[in-house]
Amino acid sequence: MVSQKTEIKVRFVETDAMGVVYHANYLAWCEVARIEMLEALGMPYEKLTELGYHIPVLEAHLCYKRPAKFGDTVEVIAKICEKPSVRIRVDYEMRCNKQILLTGHTLHAFVNSRGLPIKPPAEFVKSLRNHFKD
Amino acid sequence: MVSQKTEIKVRFVETDAMGVVYHANYLAWCEVARIEMLEALGMPYEKLTELGYHIPVLEAHLCYKRPAKFGDTVEVIAKICEKPSVRIRVDYEMRCNKQILLTGHTLHAFVNSRGLPIKPPAEFVKSLRNHFKD
Amino acid sequence: MVSQKTEIKVRFVETDAMGVVYHANYLAWCEVARIEMLEALGMPYEKLTELGYHIPVLEAHLCYKRPAKFGDTVEVIAKICEKPSVRIRVDYEMRCNKQILLTGHTLHAFVNSRGLPIKPPAEFVKSLRNHFKD
Amino acid sequence: MVSQKTEIKVRFVETDAMGVVYHANYLAWCEVARIEMLEALGMPYEKLTELGYHIPVLEAHLCYKRPAKFGDTVEVIAKICEKPSVRIRVDYEMRCNKQILLTGHTLHAFVNSRGLPIKPPAEFVKSLRNHFKD
Repeated sequence: MVSQKTEIKVRFVETDAMGVVYHANYLAWCEVARIEMLEALGMPYEKLTELGYHIPVLEAHLCYKRPAKFGDTVEVIAKICEKPSVRIRVDYEMRCNKQILLTGHTLHAFVNSRGLPIKPPAEFVKSLRNHFKD
Repeated sequence: MVSQKTEIKVRFVETDAMGVVYHANYLAWCEVARIEMLEALGMPYEKLTELGYHIPVLEAHLCYKRPAKFGDTVEVIAKICEKPSVRIRVDYEMRCNKQILLTGHTLHAFVNSRGLPIKPPAEFVKSLRNHFKD
Repeated sequence: MVSQKTEIKVRFVETDAMGVVYHANYLAWCEVARIEMLEALGMPYEKLTELGYHIPVLEAHLCYKRPAKFGDTVEVIAKICEKPSVRIRVDYEMRCNKQILLTGHTLHAFVNSRGLPIKPPAEFVKSLRNHFKD
Repeated sequence: MVSQKTEIKVRFVETDAMGVVYHANYLAWCEVARIEMLEALGMPYEKLTELGYHIPVLEAHLCYKRPAKFGDTVEVIAKICEKPSVRIRVDYEMRCNKQILLTGHTLHAFVNSRGLPIKPPAEFVKSLRNHFKD
């Protein structure tokens, strides 16, 4: 399993007229944690795009439990629990003041610059393999 | 069944460095169509909030097929297919140039100003009932 | 003088916890009107980028008079009042319910794909000249 | 003089199809630095709103020099250089890799919950006075 914890301080721009964080903004926080996880795996996003790889979101699923508010510091945990195949599933959990705010996941594939599915870079596969030993 | 079609012209602010619409922004478009659907049902969001009702998103699920680009005009279809109970499920389909971009759904509940679940307003129930005759 | 009027219906995502439109979002509306103005001048943004031109914002100035709220329909007027030279100045006025919400301007230059300043396309200059006859 | 330095790591959601940070997003970063400055002055925004104060943006002015890119870490400096009167002017400078990206300022006033101008809280005036001794 690979896991990454990121702290996000809620910005005013992220709130809406209900006084809480707008529901679409949690997806951008998932991405912040996901990208830090890639970096921790030795695969910073900038390097991947330089190599011609993209990792678009194929599917996103979010379950909203409690809203975050302006000024809150939210803990975003991203995890890869299943050994990635052609598709990579990343699971998320967000917490604030010891309460769960949100759970969810996103599904990804590696594509080339023309959007066609390709194998992930060998270096990435190798790096992940160390975390998913049979 | 209740159905609402809305057209959205992609704004530059909605794109990202991959040259396409950022994946979280589709959720905001779902909401635009959902709110127009409520209005068509005689229940504009402003009226609901004045009456003390809120309809937070409990769950969101999006399947991304093809990305929209700057300048595209995207057709967003929101539908209520199941007779709403305590929870309301809204299904979405987005299309551009006769191709499906995205399918998904959101799940909602009526809550009062303190965030506690309450029955939807009688007027809304009545308006919906006309669309879901047994 | 060139002038363009655009109507924007405030989306929920554009509001903040003060219950009004977040102040940075007006800049994106300015752009919507600016791009429609370019289109009306026979120079759609997509065409400009295809030709290798970009028109970055060099300067932005906004004076906030009254906030827009969710559900408001805002009239955004973009104008080119001065004959463009190397730089193009676009002035804005936003109105809602017969009241002025905002005035402002942005300053732009034509640059090539490497970000270097270049002359605007001949077609654009010609199209503008018709509006600024001496 | 009061000065506050904040570091912001560019998020993917903040980029646009030109491959750089969308110009409106710098305004949200100004706010992040401004709010941290208020906090350092003993006047966290949450406390101000609890006391019934709001500090809306009356005017914003940004000069764009160089764009930030995804993954950049941007230094945002917010400063109050003039002793605040009824209006408070905050100046900004953003830097990345030792180059200036942006300069600008915002103008603010204290208003009550009905949007009417009021005197800033005594505690805030006192805290500021220590930085602007005659």
